[in-house]
Amino acid sequence: MTDRDDDPVAPDDVKPAEALSDIYAEDGSVRSDFLAMVGAAIADRDLLFLRKNVARLHESELGDVLESILPEQRHALVRLLGSDFDMTALTEVDEGIRLDIVDQMSNEQIAAGIGELDSDDAVYILEDLDDEDREDILSQLPFTERVRLMRALDYPESSAGRRMQTEFVAVPPFWTVGQTIDYLREEEELPESFSQIFVIDPTFKLVGALDLDKVLRAKRQVKIETIMHETNHSIPAEMDQEEAAQLFEQYDLLSAAVVDNNGRLVGVLTIDDVVDVIQEEAEEDLLRLGGVGDEELSDSIFSTSRSRVPWLAVNLLTAFLSASVISLFDATIQQIIALAILMPAVAGMGGNAGSQTMTVSVRALATKSLDIHNAARIIRREAGVGILNGMLFGCAIGIVAGVWFQDIHIGGIIATAMCLNMLAAALAGILIPLVLDKFGADPAVSSAVFVTAVTDIVGFFAFLGIATWWYGISG
Amino acid sequence: MTDRDDDPVAPDDVKPAEALSDIYAEDGSVRSDFLAMVGAAIADRDLLFLRKNVARLHESELGDVLESILPEQRHALVRLLGSDFDMTALTEVDEGIRLDIVDQMSNEQIAAGIGELDSDDAVYILEDLDDEDREDILSQLPFTERVRLMRALDYPESSAGRRMQTEFVAVPPFWTVGQTIDYLREEEELPESFSQIFVIDPTFKLVGALDLDKVLRAKRQVKIETIMHETNHSIPAEMDQEEAAQLFEQYDLLSAAVVDNNGRLVGVLTIDDVVDVIQEEAEEDLLRLGGVGDEELSDSIFSTSRSRVPWLAVNLLTAFLSASVISLFDATIQQIIALAILMPAVAGMGGNAGSQTMTVSVRALATKSLDIHNAARIIRREAGVGILNGMLFGCAIGIVAGVWFQDIHIGGIIATAMCLNMLAAALAGILIPLVLDKFGADPAVSSAVFVTAVTDIVGFFAFLGIATWWYGISG
Repeated sequence: MTDRDDDPVAPDDVKPAEALSDIYAEDGSVRSDFLAMVGAAIADRDLLFLRKNVARLHESELGDVLESILPEQRHALVRLLGSDFDMTALTEVDEGIRLDIVDQMSNEQIAAGIGELDSDDAVYILEDLDDEDREDILSQLPFTERVRLMRALDYPESSAGRRMQTEFVAVPPFWTVGQTIDYLREEEELPESFSQIFVIDPTFKLVGALDLDKVLRAKRQVKIETIMHETNHSIPAEMDQEEAAQLFEQYDLLSAAVVDNNGRLVGVLTIDDVVDVIQEEAEEDLLRLGGVGDEELSDSIFSTSRSRVPWLAVNLLTAFLSASVISLFDATIQQIIALAILMPAVAGMGGNAGSQTMTVSVRALATKSLDIHNAARIIRREAGVGILNGMLFGCAIGIVAGVWFQDIHIGGIIATAMCLNMLAAALAGILIPLVLDKFGADPAVSSAVFVTAVTDIVGFFAFLGIATWWYGISG
Repeated sequence: MTDRDDDPVAPDDVKPAEALSDIYAEDGSVRSDFLAMVGAAIADRDLLFLRKNVARLHESELGDVLESILPEQRHALVRLLGSDFDMTALTEVDEGIRLDIVDQMSNEQIAAGIGELDSDDAVYILEDLDDEDREDILSQLPFTERVRLMRALDYPESSAGRRMQTEFVAVPPFWTVGQTIDYLREEEELPESFSQIFVIDPTFKLVGALDLDKVLRAKRQVKIETIMHETNHSIPAEMDQEEAAQLFEQYDLLSAAVVDNNGRLVGVLTIDDVVDVIQEEAEEDLLRLGGVGDEELSDSIFSTSRSRVPWLAVNLLTAFLSASVISLFDATIQQIIALAILMPAVAGMGGNAGSQTMTVSVRALATKSLDIHNAARIIRREAGVGILNGMLFGCAIGIVAGVWFQDIHIGGIIATAMCLNMLAAALAGILIPLVLDKFGADPAVSSAVFVTAVTDIVGFFAFLGIATWWYGISG
């Protein structure tokens, strides 16, 4: 918690986060006065200010600044900073902004910047480029680095192999703790930081791992193989990143070895990358439940509009389905106009109850807490909740409707219809996600459409159907 | 990836995760045959089997087993395992199940089990107990441990102080690397594992931190103060856990020092606890958007039903509001029954478009990517998307309605109403969350109610109102 007032002129050797941990306002956005200063410095080409106050920001802070300024300012800033621009910041911004910035950079500048990144960050930036640019950039990198990055890029998109770092520390099992410490002290070509040491045989097959605290606490003459632990949770490079993230969560891993098909160590996956995957996954579920695809705040009107059309189109179809259900009863509505006034309430309450159950079910499926062992119990519970709340709100709406239209019949009819629809909503809210999941579809994507269709159709059909039957009206 | 067939009789010294990494079926649920074996062993009081195959599971695996068996089996299992029951598993199950199990245990048994836990896990279990039981259990613990836990429990609920581990390694800045390594090798009373060494002054004030890899790579005579780094991101014990989690995410921290009001080191917060907080937070947003509060799968019908009533009650009110809007136009509906048939489609499409925009806005607010710097741009974008999709779907529904009812007027009326409602939906979807957030309310909780109210009311009013005016009908 540094206080800027104590230190009006930041000395040259001050640390980045210290100098500017206060670039944020209280609400978490970048402070407007700081952005104004940055904007002025860009306009004035004030390199001194930019190097001192922008180039030194933490990568995530620089990312926030890039997201908060205008596109032209972004391009100018990257140009002005030149080789002082920390490309790691590109891993912290929206894809649209990343591509926009990278597009403005020459392949030479990208190659120079990428050379200084950890391999996982480099892959993150390279994987979005088109093939030609990527080839060109890779060809400008030193041989060993090029090979490493190409190997990581060879793994499928969203696999552990794409997210891993290819730099790691590995030693043979027959070394002693003393030999290992001496190696760490003298070897120049080690990753900048590491939290585990892997143990491999001469063919690079993974045989175990060592936590650093165990190395520090053992005597020099102790053999590595006696203090290493077997790596039960090594991750195949082809494994999907979400699956890998689940392993991290389940077993509270901080880092895990990534191995190829032959069990050879090819990299290491660390928890900070996994946290991003967990975040993205939770965000995906939330957006999909809301009927939104992979869109970003930086997307244009046209691409946003396009990405939302499919969901709306499906809803238009189900809306026509509901309309045709209503049209079956047009004669009834014509005679009792109160039905038209009240029918959206029956459908709407069902829709809300259904979306409550569906939200719980989709989330429970995503966290694997809803499975065959408790499905029957949860279905029974939801049905019970549906009946209970159906009776409660059925009575409420029945009394209000009866008083409003001075007609006890309409009160009884709407109460019954509401009860039925709330039960249908509960069953649809749990069964539809379960069935979609069973057949391998993502329940977050499509559940809402089906649940709303069920509650609309059952709502209109029950309410208008019971009324038609009760009043003995024939169409 | 161990293969059970190679090793039919697990030797006694086999590691837990190895013996049973295959307790899971393909879909991630616990295998039914394993549960059947456990159930049989519980019924037969087969202690040998339970100790060998259940007591040794990883805490999260044991948690999954506890969640997958019947309540009576849970109680019997905990009783049978006695002191072999790893209480850490209780941190991996639903609150309802945790309380149910703890209720069945004697305070002596809980105290014995808690004594073996890390302080953060112990606090997690203790904080849910009633005061009397907690006092009793604490009084049975050794003095130093009791003091530690009581200090952590003194911090507010959901604060960093509650989630931190009070065990840590700290050394003075003037020590050398050699002294530090010797201390680590000889001192018995150190935490079982650690990933950072903290540097403190004689009054326990935090002056820095050391990553273990830096210690391993430095020569023995190097002074600690020359290789430590300043801890820019130390966390006040009173800080809310969500805020702490955001610091971890922003700065890719693996662990952070927790300090009291005087800057004295009181504990350490690690990323594995933070991952749980991130998960819970994302889950909360999703559930709240779906109109569900803090409910769990293990909750009963009555408590679930009760927790969902408030949201449904608010929706009932807005449903009556919409109904009164419709009732303004009953004369029109009576003359043109097509309006009753089509009006839910206008309201429903608006509701869906509004919920798309709202989902994006709520998520962007939660991740702090929507702020004053881009709010104006995003509002313009959403309005543009609303107009564009409004025209698209307005035309589509207009054509279909015109053909269906053989009436070009009704086609034009519904197209216009749909356009207006989609624009209203877009504006409501972004402005309502922004305003709620501005006034300190959680936009995830209440946005959906307001957005649906707007799209229903505007939808019905626009469609029926335009029709009334066009056909010149007076009520």
